[in-house]
Amino acid sequence: MKKIILIPDSFKGTMSSETVCRIMSGVLQAHFPDAELVSIPVADGGEGSVDCFLCALGGKKKYVQVHGVFGEPMQSCYGVLPGGKTAVVELAACAGLPLAKDRLNPGKATTYGVGELLLAAAEDGVEQIILGLGGSATNDGGCGAAAAAGVVFRNKDGRSFVPTGDTLAEIDRIDCSGLNPLLRKLSITAMCDVDSPPFGETGAAYIFAPQKGADREAVIRLDQGLRHLCKKIAEELGTDVSGLPGGGAAGGAGAGMHAFFHAQLKPGIETILDLTNFDFCLTGTDLVLTGEGQIDGQSLRGKVVAGVARRAAKQQIPVVAVVGSIADGAEEIYEQGVTAMFSINTKAMDFSQSRWESEKNLKITMENLSRLLSAGFQHTGRTAKGKER
Amino acid sequence: MKKIILIPDSFKGTMSSETVCRIMSGVLQAHFPDAELVSIPVADGGEGSVDCFLCALGGKKKYVQVHGVFGEPMQSCYGVLPGGKTAVVELAACAGLPLAKDRLNPGKATTYGVGELLLAAAEDGVEQIILGLGGSATNDGGCGAAAAAGVVFRNKDGRSFVPTGDTLAEIDRIDCSGLNPLLRKLSITAMCDVDSPPFGETGAAYIFAPQKGADREAVIRLDQGLRHLCKKIAEELGTDVSGLPGGGAAGGAGAGMHAFFHAQLKPGIETILDLTNFDFCLTGTDLVLTGEGQIDGQSLRGKVVAGVARRAAKQQIPVVAVVGSIADGAEEIYEQGVTAMFSINTKAMDFSQSRWESEKNLKITMENLSRLLSAGFQHTGRTAKGKER
Repeated sequence: MKKIILIPDSFKGTMSSETVCRIMSGVLQAHFPDAELVSIPVADGGEGSVDCFLCALGGKKKYVQVHGVFGEPMQSCYGVLPGGKTAVVELAACAGLPLAKDRLNPGKATTYGVGELLLAAAEDGVEQIILGLGGSATNDGGCGAAAAAGVVFRNKDGRSFVPTGDTLAEIDRIDCSGLNPLLRKLSITAMCDVDSPPFGETGAAYIFAPQKGADREAVIRLDQGLRHLCKKIAEELGTDVSGLPGGGAAGGAGAGMHAFFHAQLKPGIETILDLTNFDFCLTGTDLVLTGEGQIDGQSLRGKVVAGVARRAAKQQIPVVAVVGSIADGAEEIYEQGVTAMFSINTKAMDFSQSRWESEKNLKITMENLSRLLSAGFQHTGRTAKGKER
Repeated sequence: MKKIILIPDSFKGTMSSETVCRIMSGVLQAHFPDAELVSIPVADGGEGSVDCFLCALGGKKKYVQVHGVFGEPMQSCYGVLPGGKTAVVELAACAGLPLAKDRLNPGKATTYGVGELLLAAAEDGVEQIILGLGGSATNDGGCGAAAAAGVVFRNKDGRSFVPTGDTLAEIDRIDCSGLNPLLRKLSITAMCDVDSPPFGETGAAYIFAPQKGADREAVIRLDQGLRHLCKKIAEELGTDVSGLPGGGAAGGAGAGMHAFFHAQLKPGIETILDLTNFDFCLTGTDLVLTGEGQIDGQSLRGKVVAGVARRAAKQQIPVVAVVGSIADGAEEIYEQGVTAMFSINTKAMDFSQSRWESEKNLKITMENLSRLLSAGFQHTGRTAKGKER
């Protein structure tokens, strides 16, 4: 083993991807002391995404005063990657669910601070911004961020206001002429792992607003607000985002980012693989280790393991997935280039118990994998290296 | 992969060792079609042991009319291995717990039929008998078997009788002069995986009689009976079996077999490894696959995985254990020569549920192991082949 890449997703509810990387590399280092270990903890766009990027790529954190999820002043931050051309902003850093806890109210929550973070990054002179959309407490269709960046929303009386979930329906006119020119020049990629459109029964309000604190009545109101916003965006900006896949991400911020900032919506893993220059990084790699909480039929689309495997398979590099659970239908992942997958469950034990043993179990599984790989086997089987790809 | 040996124990409560072998070899055959696969399902000495031996080594079953666990006539069988020099007898074939179900009574149950099986095998002209002691319904100290083979037990009145658990205390004299001479000439190895002495708080009655249907009062009576038997054996035969480790196996039959038939008590796995000429079989083997229901600190002593690993390690052949659970302390097994161990649990799930998915989960685990082994890795790690042994 000369080079091993570790590129796991988080194990939802138990371990962050950074924790997974730390445990994996700790065990591998003991077994393969001379190997180069490259850790790329995968961010899902939610809370901690900036840390993940900085951990994988280096760079620095910049702190800035912004308005929080209910307009209160707060210190937030974003990351600038080495070279200074790319910034990483996470919506959750000022409009995230944990910041709103005990006072959840998607009708009142705003993404205003996100616009301030984007502006701050733009003023740093970056050429592109990666914006993580996960973990929002908001349902404002990104209007708050747009307002912070200079877009003006007016009601029927011509009065300007900053729309939130509850007041989206009051938007009559949208004026983008005041959008900060710095933000017009750079490109924004929004990391977005959901397919939901902005409104409707599969949209932002119906699917995600309940976990942000909305009751049935509020969900209907929020959905109607987003529907109205999309109508106004079409009328005023000439952009149709009403059916945009991912437009429903972050309480409709997916749609807003696309409409107001021309942001490209992209699966998180593809964003990361491109940004880390993963294809180049694969050169000379003996093994790629990836993983996630559960591998299943759903893992094929836009998820970390499949995304990683597809790239590695092109260069015929073995990919081992270490996962929480191997669900029914998981074997489809082999066709994406996964060589083998192992569950970290070392005992028959319910998740309510086993979740507390995740770190220990991951360590045990890595120990055994490392020992097996150390033993060395000729590739003589039918499924030998690169054979099934 | 040119040659792979499969030598698993049963997964208690879910899969027999033959089932484990069948699933393992099915998957391996698909991945390594040119490899020689040697299946040695391990018998624990209990029910099914004869089948296991015949499955691993070939040979034939012989059917014979004997007396069952409560003296009723029944058809039982034993195995004769190829060459005709070795017979395999299991106590459970005529005195086993399943045969006594609904009428469990260790005070009345007898090993008489076991003596008849031994005689039948002796009359076949075999030179050695492997006797599996597991799964008994009896507590007669092997007196029934001895009586069937010609040993005479007399009470204080000089009347001969066949002692059972309840009447062991009535034994006054033991006369071995009538023991069938055929049985004197051959060697008996009793497979015995417990350390219990015949009597006392760690003895046969206290530890095992409750599961055979004895209440508290009966346990005390049975224990006293075995204590008396050992005293009489010492007085009459000049053999002290009172502290014999394993003497408490099969309701004291371990002690009886040693005293009356000079049987050697030996851990099951060692018996099998010797009988299958395992050391020789290892020549040219690339991988040994073993396994059991749970691997733990206890696995070090006399259990299958450790026994197999110790032999394989001497020839620096990698050993992979596929197990139900990896319990705390299991890592001690590495020092015995286990290269790596993998649990078949693919999901976080309680045993009450996962037990029904054992076969599927074993298949999934074998599939992934095979795929990983197929990929081929150089042995460059610290724990490379043979390094830690």
